[in-house]
This record gives sequence, structure tokens and C-alpha cells, in this order.
Amino acid sequence: MTFHDRARFPRGFRCASRNVGLKPEARDLTLFASDVDAAAAAVFTRNQFPGAPIILGRETIKGGALRAIIANSKVSNVATGERGLQNARRMAAAAANELGTEPGKVLVSSTGVIGVQLPVEKIEAGVVGMSRDLQDDPLVGAEGIMTTDTHPKALSATVGGATITWVAKGSGMIEPNMATMLSYIFTDARFDAATLDRLLREAVHVSFNMLSVDTDTSTSDTCVILANGLAGSVDEGAFRDVLVAGCIRMTEILARDGEGAEHLLRVTVRDAVNESEARYVAKALVNSPLIKTMVHGADPNVGRILMAIGKCFDATVNTTATSAWVNGYQVVANGERLEFDDATVRAALKVEVVDLEVSLGAGQATARAYGCDLTKGYIDENAAYYSS
Amino acid sequence: MTFHDRARFPRGFRCASRNVGLKPEARDLTLFASDVDAAAAAVFTRNQFPGAPIILGRETIKGGALRAIIANSKVSNVATGERGLQNARRMAAAAANELGTEPGKVLVSSTGVIGVQLPVEKIEAGVVGMSRDLQDDPLVGAEGIMTTDTHPKALSATVGGATITWVAKGSGMIEPNMATMLSYIFTDARFDAATLDRLLREAVHVSFNMLSVDTDTSTSDTCVILANGLAGSVDEGAFRDVLVAGCIRMTEILARDGEGAEHLLRVTVRDAVNESEARYVAKALVNSPLIKTMVHGADPNVGRILMAIGKCFDATVNTTATSAWVNGYQVVANGERLEFDDATVRAALKVEVVDLEVSLGAGQATARAYGCDLTKGYIDENAAYYSS
Repeated sequence: MTFHDRARFPRGFRCASRNVGLKPEARDLTLFASDVDAAAAAVFTRNQFPGAPIILGRETIKGGALRAIIANSKVSNVATGERGLQNARRMAAAAANELGTEPGKVLVSSTGVIGVQLPVEKIEAGVVGMSRDLQDDPLVGAEGIMTTDTHPKALSATVGGATITWVAKGSGMIEPNMATMLSYIFTDARFDAATLDRLLREAVHVSFNMLSVDTDTSTSDTCVILANGLAGSVDEGAFRDVLVAGCIRMTEILARDGEGAEHLLRVTVRDAVNESEARYVAKALVNSPLIKTMVHGADPNVGRILMAIGKCFDATVNTTATSAWVNGYQVVANGERLEFDDATVRAALKVEVVDLEVSLGAGQATARAYGCDLTKGYIDENAAYYSS
Repeated sequence: MTFHDRARFPRGFRCASRNVGLKPEARDLTLFASDVDAAAAAVFTRNQFPGAPIILGRETIKGGALRAIIANSKVSNVATGERGLQNARRMAAAAANELGTEPGKVLVSSTGVIGVQLPVEKIEAGVVGMSRDLQDDPLVGAEGIMTTDTHPKALSATVGGATITWVAKGSGMIEPNMATMLSYIFTDARFDAATLDRLLREAVHVSFNMLSVDTDTSTSDTCVILANGLAGSVDEGAFRDVLVAGCIRMTEILARDGEGAEHLLRVTVRDAVNESEARYVAKALVNSPLIKTMVHGADPNVGRILMAIGKCFDATVNTTATSAWVNGYQVVANGERLEFDDATVRAALKVEVVDLEVSLGAGQATARAYGCDLTKGYIDENAAYYSS
């Protein structure tokens, strides 16, 4: 499979975005709409302080059908109490009113600062007339939900007679565990909500749930899939394969655009006793500040790889059979650092995509985690996010 | 209790440090010696790839008696296999030979780059004559074990007729779980090794084990206590209180000198269902990159406190009774962000020591964790550590 050169929507999906006054000038409100009701499934953050849109979304998704998504940036409507929940409902109602559907078929997302009440009147006024702006470019929708993202993110691919389109945002406060901050998947293939739910969880398990920019789990993470059926039935296995591939590719795009990131860092752990331990070690490596700064500086300080494996106290590690590779170049064998040419390892670390591969020598399970390097750009973004 | 204005040794302890050629010019080898055998206990890193000195140290400490500690900086002798272990033994033998004691009474420490063989000949040659340099200033010993530390670290205090002295180093790769990188405690009080072991573990539990600069657990962490008995018996309760206070103070000194740090960050979690959960949440907050950058930028983005509590999926949080304070100023009540004066919170975050206090509203247990802000200085230190 290949992704389309330019992302496009499946049949019957369109979007619009606007500035409604939450941000000074940039687009801050997005509407995604399907011409007909779509079967839908979603996963949400496991954070114990979920935003009001998450609380509402869990209720909405029980219906198994969506017609639209309304999403704003700048204010996340988190830690805002009963008033925040009312504001989320008002957002759904405003979008439903504009599109001529019911509030129960509108999923609401908000992303931005935590703990500030949503200026819902601006959204209610701003959404009026957006149905006339709906058009075919997913990037227009992606633009309205950007926070610290450096570019809007959309992908699409063909499967059988159908199309799958991914639109996402997120670059900080990302260790999803359930989903990345906001990730919307649209398809014109026909599946019922229960099947979509199963397929979505399967795809998220190996993609967004293995993404970590900074170990911090957002209060707003949402990943939703809408299937409006306009392309009819598609082979489930083929659909699943494309769905997984697209979720992984979007995960890589999000990781590469992690706040301040200059590298995509992929960590593959092999030969673990089970998948759970492989995931645990892969996450520990992708999250280690010393691994991340090693990649950032292209510094061949690969002893840190053993440190980061070794700090996984609860993992089974065959310490005399542990190996490691940097972009295919072996740097650790039998639990010891090999003598190697510094310049070669330095060069391997300098490329944009850095693959660390580790064998624990303990079993046969594998997992891959996705992250990025740690740079001064991350500090710049986050030392003054609220104030800027 | 108060700490002495200038750290000094208990009776019978002295130290020396030298440059023996591991570093270009700075002191890189330290010897601590007791005039008589001292009862001793130690805790070591839980990292699954412990350095050769840790493997040897676990064997040595079984004897329950030490006469000396020899420690080098620059090379950590980790991931160096059988040859590394032989080199650690050679270090112990060289120190024993210089001091006229047995290798089994010498604890060895090495700190620095992982995965490089120790130039043990330089140490063997360099230690010759060091017994004639032994003198009374603990800072001289502290200087020889510095890596990225910005200053040597020593403390002392009186308890009854005895003295306790702490000498430590460590500023990166620090989330000890057993001990900070290298922390040596000397006393002339008389205790047997079993009692020392119990007292040490009790003190480390609430101090070094609650320290995290960057979540990365060193392969070399060592915390050892030597009691040479020259001051005779001391009340155990009084000794424990001073031991705990000194370990906590040294933990704060290490945290404040975390790589690139400009603030000491203390996180106190109250009203947890048990101590284990209080520790888990306190560590999560002190480690959160978004909390650390908030402190660095004095950015009153306190919604992140709720995010960081909420990402502790396995902790019991009463989400409608959660409160939080920044240096005594309440910013969260009932799980919601309070309206507050930005300038006041900004001012509270700007001081050198930032105390975050959180009540989970779920029980009665408390814990405190120690860390620091995340700055560009950390990136500078770690993007080129190996190469510099």
C-alpha cells in the first residue's frame, strides 16, 4: 500500500476551519462532517482528570453513530467542572444546529491550556455558516486544531474501493496510552460500530499507544474513527492492514513533530519474554532523557542504552546476551559495549530517522515505540506555553 | 540539629584526591580512609547492568567492615565484562596496598562514561603515595569524584559525642531507587553492621530514593555508611534523626545541582491511600517534563499539575477533592483550577526552592520527592557528554 501524494477525504466527508477569536489570528475551530450518519468508535485518554469533551465523548460514542466532529484549539476545557461540561454540550448543540443533525451525533474535542473556561459564546457565534465552507481538503481541518504543531497533519490511502483518511494534531504532552491528543480517522468503507471499535483498538495498540514525546499523558487524548459506508463493503483483513499502517505512519509524523524535535526516534525491542515486557522496555528507552539527548547530539554514548534497559527492574533481561544496534550498526553484544568506530556511530545518529534496536536475549516477543530527541526547542515551547 | 558551617570528618577519617591522568587536569581519584576498621553497610543500584564496582561492592560489603573507599571519576567501569571486574579488584588491591589493609576492606566506586575499559594502570600508579596526602577536609575527597557536578558536596553534623559526615556526587542519570550515584557517610559513632544496614535503608527510603533529576537510573549508584566507633556509643534514635536529616539535605543539594538546574523542586503528596501511592504520584510530578519546564519558566500553567496527577493511572485519586499549592499558594481546589492572580503564582515559581504540594483527598499517607527544573543546560550537558 502507498499513501496518496496529497491527502483527500473518503466519499461524503468534508471539513471547514475558521478563526473564531480564541486565538488572535490563526484558525482555532474545525468542523468535520459526513453527508450521512457514520458508524463510529473511539478511544480516549486514561488520565484521571479527563477534559469535559472526554466525559461528553464517552457518552456520545455509546450511540455508535456520528455525523460530525467539532474541535477547537487554544483552550482544552479541562479541570473546568460542571460549567465546562455544559460548555462542551453547547459546542455539540451549536454544531448540530449548523449541520441539521442531533447533538448526540457530534463529537466534541478541545485542545490547549488546561484549567481555563472555554469562551463558548465565541464558538457558538463562530460556527454559524461553517456548513457553507465545508470542502474537500483534510489539511484545512487539520489546521484548525493545531497547537504547537509545526504543520497540519493528514494522510490518506486506498483500500479496495474505499479510502481511509487520518487527520491528527499533537506534539507535546504526549504519551497517549489510549490515543494521541486528537486523531480522527474517516472512511467510506462499511463496518458496524462494534467491528470498528475492535479494529481501532487493535491499530491504536501498536501505533498511538506506543508514542511518547515526553511521558506526559494529556487530559484530552481522543482517537475516533467514522465509517459512513458510502463505498460499501471492504475486505476486513485488507482494511485492518491499511488502518494499522496509517496509524503507525501518523504516529511517526506526530513523533517527528514532537515539540522541538529534530529526529524521529524508533526503538524496537526484540527477544523479550512477552509483548508486555517488550513494550515496557521500548517505552523506557524512547522516554529516557539520556537516550533522547544522545540522539539529539549524535553523541555515540551508547552505554546509555544498557543503562536504560537496566533500569527496567521488572523486565526479564538476559544481561549476558543483550545486544543493541544503532541504525543497523551493532554497538552492544553479550551485554558489553563493542569497540567501534565513533565516527560511524556518530554518522548513524545524525540522520533524521534513528532506529535503535535491542535484543533482550530472553524470549521471542517484539515491540516498537516511537518518540523523538530532546532539544532546547522543547524547553522553549514549554517554559512559557501558558504565557505565550 | 544544625549542620556545621564547614563540613569536617568524624574522628579517624581522612581523605585525599589527585589527578592520575584519567581527566586532563582535574582531580579524578579519591581515597577515603579510616584509621581503624569501621563497621559498614551499603545499598547499590537496582539497574540490571550494574558496573563492575557494584558487583564487587556487593561481595565486599558482606564482610560488614571497611577501612577505605577508592573512587575514580571519568570512566564508570560499566558494561566492561570480566576484564572490568578484574580491574575493579585491582583498584581495591592497589588501595589496600597503599593503606596497609586487605582488598576485602576497600570499597571501589567508579563514575563516568559507560562501556569504556578502565585505565587501571593509571590508578595503580597514581594511588601510590596517596596515604601521605590524607587530610581532614571532606571537600577534597568530594572534588575527586565530580563529573558534571558544579561543586563538591559535603555536609557534617554532631550527634551526641559523635559526628556524621556526608560526601556525595551526582547530577545526572539520577533516579536512584536505591541510592544516588555516589554517597558516602562517615561516622565515629559505634554501631554494628546490621544496625547500620537497617538505619541506612530507613534513611535512603525517604531521601536518595525520592530523588530524581531525569528518571534515568545509573548503573553505578552506591550509598555506603562507615562507622569506626572512635566516639563510642550514641543514642540510636538521635543518630537516626540526624542521619535522616543529613540524607535529605544531601538529596536536596544533589537535586539543586541537577544537570542544568536552576531550581530545587520539592513535591509533597498528602492524603494518599498509602505511602506507596504517595511516593508514586510524587515521583510522577517531580519527573514530569511539563511540570519541570513550568517551574523553569515560572509559567503559572498549573493545570499541568492535574495532568501529572491524572496520568498516575494506578493511583487512587479523589478527583473532586484534589487540591494543589505552589509555595503555599492554593491553585487547585476540588479538582478544578482556581481563579488566581497570575503574577502571584509567577512570583511563587520564581524563587530558588519551589514547593508543590498536592492533596489527593483519598487517605492519610504522605511522601515527598526531590528534583529540579528542566533547562537548556541539561540538553547542553547531555547532548555531548561522551564527546567532551
